[in-house]
Parts: sequence; C-alpha cells; structure tokens
Amino acid sequence: MKLASVKHGRDGKLVVVSRDLARMVSVEDIAPTLQQALDNWNEVKERLNTRFQALDSGELAGEPFEQSRCASPLPRAYHWADGSAYVNHVELVRKARNAEMPESFWTDPLMYQGGSDSFLAPTDPIRMPQSEGFGIDFEAEIAVVVDDVPMGLSADEALNHIRLIMLVNDVSLRGLIPGELAKGFGFYQSKPSSAFSPVCVTPDELGDKWQGGKLHLPLVSRLNGKLFGKPNAGIDMTFHFGQLIAHAARTRPLVAGTIIGSGTVSNKLNDGPGKPISEGGVGYSCIAEVRMIETIQQGKPSTPFMDFGDSIQIEMLDENGLSIFGRIDQKVEKY
Amino acid sequence: MKLASVKHGRDGKLVVVSRDLARMVSVEDIAPTLQQALDNWNEVKERLNTRFQALDSGELAGEPFEQSRCASPLPRAYHWADGSAYVNHVELVRKARNAEMPESFWTDPLMYQGGSDSFLAPTDPIRMPQSEGFGIDFEAEIAVVVDDVPMGLSADEALNHIRLIMLVNDVSLRGLIPGELAKGFGFYQSKPSSAFSPVCVTPDELGDKWQGGKLHLPLVSRLNGKLFGKPNAGIDMTFHFGQLIAHAARTRPLVAGTIIGSGTVSNKLNDGPGKPISEGGVGYSCIAEVRMIETIQQGKPSTPFMDFGDSIQIEMLDENGLSIFGRIDQKVEKY
Repeated sequence: MKLASVKHGRDGKLVVVSRDLARMVSVEDIAPTLQQALDNWNEVKERLNTRFQALDSGELAGEPFEQSRCASPLPRAYHWADGSAYVNHVELVRKARNAEMPESFWTDPLMYQGGSDSFLAPTDPIRMPQSEGFGIDFEAEIAVVVDDVPMGLSADEALNHIRLIMLVNDVSLRGLIPGELAKGFGFYQSKPSSAFSPVCVTPDELGDKWQGGKLHLPLVSRLNGKLFGKPNAGIDMTFHFGQLIAHAARTRPLVAGTIIGSGTVSNKLNDGPGKPISEGGVGYSCIAEVRMIETIQQGKPSTPFMDFGDSIQIEMLDENGLSIFGRIDQKVEKY
Repeated sequence: MKLASVKHGRDGKLVVVSRDLARMVSVEDIAPTLQQALDNWNEVKERLNTRFQALDSGELAGEPFEQSRCASPLPRAYHWADGSAYVNHVELVRKARNAEMPESFWTDPLMYQGGSDSFLAPTDPIRMPQSEGFGIDFEAEIAVVVDDVPMGLSADEALNHIRLIMLVNDVSLRGLIPGELAKGFGFYQSKPSSAFSPVCVTPDELGDKWQGGKLHLPLVSRLNGKLFGKPNAGIDMTFHFGQLIAHAARTRPLVAGTIIGSGTVSNKLNDGPGKPISEGGVGYSCIAEVRMIETIQQGKPSTPFMDFGDSIQIEMLDENGLSIFGRIDQKVEKY
C-alpha cells in the first residue's frame, strides 16, 4: 500500500496512491490524516488496503496524483529521531578532522532528536536567512514510521512495529554544527526543518528488497540535476531499523507516528571511503562526505555547500526503474 | 484563564478550571483538545475565556476538579525544547567536575530537544527498568507554550507568542548522561518522558509576577514529602523566555503548541552556589545540584539519586499560598 498527504490545513488529507504513482484516491472517510490512521492502524489498515487495491487494479479511477500537491506524509509528527547507522559516514567525518572514532560507535547507535513540528513538503524550498557561513547541506536517508512501541523491547521485536517506509532529506547547516556540538547538547539550530518523500509505503510493497530491517536498493541523489550519489541503502548499514528503534525506546515508549531515520546513506569501497560518481564510484548522500574525501586526498575541500538557487533531488527506483516513493525536489532560497 | 486536559484517549479532553482549582467545566464544544485550541487560538480564546469566567464566578457550577484525573496539558506535543536559562546551574555542574564553562554560555543559550510524544501525566509514576546506575533525578522547571512562531524573530517579538505557562518535571537519568554526551549528539536515552503540571495558565493569570518573560515566584520541590527547594524562578534567569524562543526559532519556524522549557531553576547566594534548605538556603530544583555542592564542599556527593518508591512533588504557590498550576506528584517505580 502506498499513502500520501495532500496539502490541506496543518496535517494534510490522506490519500492512497497507485503503485505507479499516477493516480490517487481519497481515504478521508477511513482516516482523515495519516496520524489518525497510525493512531488506529489495526482498525483501519484493511480498509485502507482494500481502497488501495481497488485503485491500483483500475477498479477505482481515482484522480491524477501530482507530487507537487503533497505535504510530507506526516506534515508534523510527535517524534523524529535520526540515527547514524552508516558508521562509515561517521568515521569519515572524524577522519577528515583527524579525530579518533570511539570503538563503541560500532555497537552503540548515535541518535539525535530533530524538530518534528514543521516538516517541509517534498517540493518546498529550503528557505534560509543566509547561505554564507551556514554550510547548507542535504542528507539523503531512509526513514520508517512505527506504531506504538513499548519501552525496552528487543531489536527483533522492534522490526514488527515498522508500519511505513519513506525517504528523507535531513537538511543540515554544517557551518553551525561545530559550534553547537561544542556546547555539548547536540544539534538544534544546525538541523532545520527536514522534508520527506511525497509517498510512504508499507514494507510489503518493497518485496525482497526489504530484508532484515534494511532497504536493499540504491538511494539516488542529484545535485543541480547532476547525479551525485547512488549508494545502496542495504549495504554498510551497521544498525538495522529494529536496532535503531530499540535504541530509541530504551528508556521511554514511542507513540504511533514516531519517525526513525537511518542517517546519511553511505557505502564503503574496498573497505575504504567511496568514490565520486565522476570517478566511477557510487558517490555520496551529502556534500559533507565528498568534502571529507577531498580533504583527506587534497588537504582541503573543493565542492561548495549549497547556495541560493541550488537544487537537490532524492529518489529511489525499483528494479524496473520506477520511482517507489516519488521525488524529494527542493531548491535553496533566501528567507 | 486556566486550562487542563482530563485523561481521555491520546490527547485528553480539554476543560477550563476555576482559579482555586476546585471546579472544572468541559469546553469540548469549543475545542476538544488543547492542541486543537492552540491550532486555532485566535478563533477560540474569547469563547474559552468566557466559559472560564462563567465557571470562576460561580455562574456555571461545573464539576469537581481532580488533579489525579489529569493528563499533562498537552499529553503529546509536536515540539519540546528545553533551555538552560539558569546558567548558575550549568556553572555548578561544570565546577563539580573541574571543567571550565565557556564564556559564551552567558550569551548563547544551551538548548536540547526532548521527547514530546509520550509525556507522563502529572501524577503518573516514573517507571524505569532499573534505578541502579541510572541516576534517576527530577528537574523542576517552568515551561511556556507558544502559538505559531515565524523563523528568525527577535526576543522581544517572541514574548508576544507565549500563550500558556506551566510547570515541568524534566526527568533525567544522570547515570546515562556522561556516556551519552561523550558521543557528541546530546541527550536522548538520558532524558525519558517528562511530566507537566495538571493546569496551564494564560500569562494574565500571573499578574505582575509575570514580567519581562520571567515568572517571579518560588518553585517548590518536595522530595519524599520534605521541602527540597524553593528558588525564585524570576531570579538568576540569564535568558528570559523571549530569548529562548528566539533561539529555538533561529533556523526554523515553531508550530503552535511548541513547548519551551526554562531549564532547572536555580538561585545563587551572594554570587556563589545556593545553600540547602536545612542550612537556611532556598535549596535546589534537582538532586544533581545538591550533589555538586556536596562534591565541591566535601569532595564527594552524599545525597543519593531517586530509587524505587521515592517521590517528588513540584508546585508553585501564589502570594496567598494557593497552588497556581496544581501539583506534579510522581513516584519512581520499577518497570
């Protein structure tokens, strides 16, 4: 089943979307918003799925689905926690500044809590008061949405709580990160509003590409229309989503609609850092990572962060080249 | 106007409460939940206030108000960010471990984002899988609820967005904090679900005690029934709430219902650390702070953190000794 929230009020209007993303039909009579569907998932999932199957089979004509009309699937959420499951990415960041990475990072997930009250729509501009010094960067990631998760469950149990999967652009202000982390309380101003893919899907839509709490397909990022990265999200993911959820739920329950992110998707190459697309590699899912490679190789970065007018597209295609989640397509603009 | 959410479903049922906290009446016909009231504040505030005045004057009889029936005013919220406005408290923590505090802490607020999806009710137990090693502590604080706040506003402008004020117990797991902060991403597991006072109030209810974005009254904490602290929340608050809101909104808008906390309330004494109640001081708003004093004075802490069975009450009284927000009254229990 594929779901989306058409822009409307604070929480959007819930629709189901055909597998090919061509058509949609309202499910307002079953659940007006995605949060309300998640609040009552067991009561509504069958009816939502019946409507979806009727749409997808052509039995229901529906209406054209336009990604530009979509809000993020949850336009606002009660909890958005982002892990750093691709430890390779973390190791590179450290390496670029000659810092050792603690051995525990391979066994104990890093996770931060992000602002969840004002998500951007997938085609909304990223509006910032300044670009100079802010180091505006995208981060292409996978995210899951869970139902009610009890405190203290195991990683295996946690896998059974994943209801939906989507993509996310976890916008980061690299220029603000060092000062903010130095204060010791983690990210806050350096992580402005994130945007999610137009469509979220139930795990069964991914077939055998969803296995062991990982999504085994390339995540495609295009910076200013040019292919920037296509690392496989199923490779080099040190912690699967069940482990990330269990980490989040160690000392508190998580309520339905909580979003857990994977962190920036990153693949190694021959046990070392990956290569840019231009050198035949799978590239990267954020600008910071290519800048680290440049720093390691040339002593300083050469790829600039995003400026006003720059654009980023994030998408994932299935084996037939069809977009699974629709496309995050954002431009940086002056606020 | 005083408001509360009686436990019901995920978001409670909104009621207005008489000034003396003796009676309440439903306002479900105006706004079923506090979040819905905040989503439409300008449309509903007059009607809510008319109902409140009718109840408070006795024109409406209402029904008995029982604090034990209350959820936190927002049982779940879209954003909960907690500042550390009483820099004195931060300085003490650092002093206890012989760490310098950066000068910038006096001009640039510390703020972290907390879990907002699963707040505890004001009389819910604090249930934890273990007490040994967790260092279970309370933190008595003031919090404000804002309406929609645009990105990049000034501290003065931010003051006009404060709609409601309440108390909070920002439960902390001191034993988990050092390891978690060492990872560099801030608090996560070390800050389990917080609880808020049964009642929240509009700023006008506080008269001249609400001035310059600060609440000028003692915040009373009782540990196991014994007075533990009564520092004045209006004293030694380095950043007023307008400054904290503006800090939170620097790179993102805040949506209606966002909660901003003051951090642990703490008063200096003769420009040095305060004294315990037993020595004639105003005491403290968390156990960690008295342990710091003990460490500074005696080389090691002697007051233990909370264990199963321990209780904490947090309250604020007006000049006539009447409770303004009702009482947070929680016991630590085994999960």
